[in-house]
Amino acid sequence: MLKKNYIYAPGPVTVPPQVLAATAKPVIHHRAADFDPLFRKVSEDLKVIFQTQHPVVTFASSGTGAMEAAIVSTASPGDHVISMESGKFGERWGLMAQAFGFDVDRVQFEWGTGPDPNLVADLLKKRPDTRAVYIELCETSTGTLSDVKAIAEVTRNTDTLLIVDAVSGLCADELRTDEWGVDLVGAGSQKGMMLPPGLGFVSVSPKAQEAVKKSKSAKFYFSLAKALKSLAENTTPFTPAVNLIFGLEVALDMLKAEGMENVWKRHARLAEASRRAMKAIGCTLFSQSPANTITAVNVPEGVDGSKIVKTLREMGMTIAGGQDHLKGKIFRFATLGYYNEFDVVTIVDAVEQCLAKLGHKFERGAGINAAREYFSTTAE
Amino acid sequence: MLKKNYIYAPGPVTVPPQVLAATAKPVIHHRAADFDPLFRKVSEDLKVIFQTQHPVVTFASSGTGAMEAAIVSTASPGDHVISMESGKFGERWGLMAQAFGFDVDRVQFEWGTGPDPNLVADLLKKRPDTRAVYIELCETSTGTLSDVKAIAEVTRNTDTLLIVDAVSGLCADELRTDEWGVDLVGAGSQKGMMLPPGLGFVSVSPKAQEAVKKSKSAKFYFSLAKALKSLAENTTPFTPAVNLIFGLEVALDMLKAEGMENVWKRHARLAEASRRAMKAIGCTLFSQSPANTITAVNVPEGVDGSKIVKTLREMGMTIAGGQDHLKGKIFRFATLGYYNEFDVVTIVDAVEQCLAKLGHKFERGAGINAAREYFSTTAE
Repeated sequence: MLKKNYIYAPGPVTVPPQVLAATAKPVIHHRAADFDPLFRKVSEDLKVIFQTQHPVVTFASSGTGAMEAAIVSTASPGDHVISMESGKFGERWGLMAQAFGFDVDRVQFEWGTGPDPNLVADLLKKRPDTRAVYIELCETSTGTLSDVKAIAEVTRNTDTLLIVDAVSGLCADELRTDEWGVDLVGAGSQKGMMLPPGLGFVSVSPKAQEAVKKSKSAKFYFSLAKALKSLAENTTPFTPAVNLIFGLEVALDMLKAEGMENVWKRHARLAEASRRAMKAIGCTLFSQSPANTITAVNVPEGVDGSKIVKTLREMGMTIAGGQDHLKGKIFRFATLGYYNEFDVVTIVDAVEQCLAKLGHKFERGAGINAAREYFSTTAE
Repeated sequence: MLKKNYIYAPGPVTVPPQVLAATAKPVIHHRAADFDPLFRKVSEDLKVIFQTQHPVVTFASSGTGAMEAAIVSTASPGDHVISMESGKFGERWGLMAQAFGFDVDRVQFEWGTGPDPNLVADLLKKRPDTRAVYIELCETSTGTLSDVKAIAEVTRNTDTLLIVDAVSGLCADELRTDEWGVDLVGAGSQKGMMLPPGLGFVSVSPKAQEAVKKSKSAKFYFSLAKALKSLAENTTPFTPAVNLIFGLEVALDMLKAEGMENVWKRHARLAEASRRAMKAIGCTLFSQSPANTITAVNVPEGVDGSKIVKTLREMGMTIAGGQDHLKGKIFRFATLGYYNEFDVVTIVDAVEQCLAKLGHKFERGAGINAAREYFSTTAE
């Protein structure tokens, strides 16, 4: 078979050709006049994607860099913060906050479950001086959705900030930043935003902007104070990744044309079809609260889980395996960004072929049928 | 006239079309097998450009991010460091070191002059506990070259590290990292490396690697410890800017094919022709120790310096003005990266037209003639 490469990993994802083409335009100087309208436009359009009226700053960095900006810019050494952790990325923010000298309550709970809003409320009652709570929109390592809205209910009328890691989840799972009262949202370009990696974004609520003014932690490149000051002058403190911003303009135009409500609905639909397909071929889902960003599937009994990623790769499909203690126990695939029904059919077909090859017994085609049936009975 | 855009700023610079095209290739996943040989190749090739046998790490960041990695990863709060400052970028590293709690001796000296090796030697004699000295290969704001070799002579047999900001200077001005004994070199993609902005690089000597192990400063994304550990496994701690790395491969192939000695010679030749051209039209150079990275020219008497950048922009030419107290006093242009003799002729012609328009009196064509004469009498 003609070998083609398909990415169903939770980022980097497939980038639309028109976005790639835009990134290859001749470089312009970021202090030159022609950069001004471009940067003004993308900074405004980002607000639509982040569902906020407040500033969204852009870094030349990965999503981790964006989260570092959010975390280090809103607290000072010794400050109490709460990191809600049930997976690799939750852990990362706890470790990061420790690295910057914060007094971190790293609340570790069962992988595959989301953070309990009541627990967050209890913790905040005990420590009303908590500077910030860190949660995931989607914990990528387990494909688990947090109830961001419910946790924002807890934090929004307190002095505590809510920092949401939406690096993988933005665009795929509903996130109403201002309406729900989320303070900082961190994201990366190479996920639902359909860009190559290299841009990080942070939205900053007025409450977060006040915290930024008071933060005494060590920072320079990832200083939100510097970034916000520059953004107010329609620029960046340091050289931006100009060509990725050319691509960003095109990707944002596509997302805006579709509309965020539709973008979320599309991802929800593709993810639901993926989940039904997996169940139809005798698999179970790992997450008790599955996100639309990525589908985490338990390796069925009798199948050597360590071979799934490799077998799919031989067909040209990039998916993700489990991390840490979930290695060989789960596999994960995403239809995140520039994906439609045919992309679900394609990955489900590949997973069926892969599992059959590895000895799993199921009715061939049942996955695709379940996905198609779901698509045919639900409006797009 | 058909309007075309020409960049003669000290970065971002003109990117060769074949490099731009490479950055628009379909994204691949950075943990997938096809990324491995690419990343191994560019990490090896970077050593040629940095003139080192030791690791060169790659960040998704601007050059400032690379410098932050070098600075924060090699000292701890309270440590004594020396920042040699005679321009905007030297000042930036002093401010950065202060932001991370180092005890910084910010040695400010005359703009347009390079740091005095004897002064550095005296300072180190007084404070042998100095953890690091920061200098510029080229101070971009003034177009001034440092005598890196002489300063490395001072630091190389001490416990003090030499950190060189080569963000603008790499490829344009000679830098023999290992031979001279430079410990850390920071660079960015959008200068002599002929790429769009978005990649930062740091080379790390064995002595610097020891310091990295001991550093207790606050860091996460820009931790050289994390980056070096990942590089040893041919990867990066966080998602790399994959598409810029596609371009990096092509740009490094071009630089290697030319050879670093020739790359330096070419930049030296273009810069010398630029300097002669400026003198031939009655201008003087700002720097007492001009770098080949960028040529800083004093605004001739009778000309409104604030109009030069704008007038050139109207012709399609992006150059840089002066910064801070040099605003309106100097203008700066670079032939940095993918530039040849014709590019010098083009910018000199444009500067001649611009200055004539702004009332400067000189023999028209004298600049181009001086450049051409120099080219014709020197071997390439």
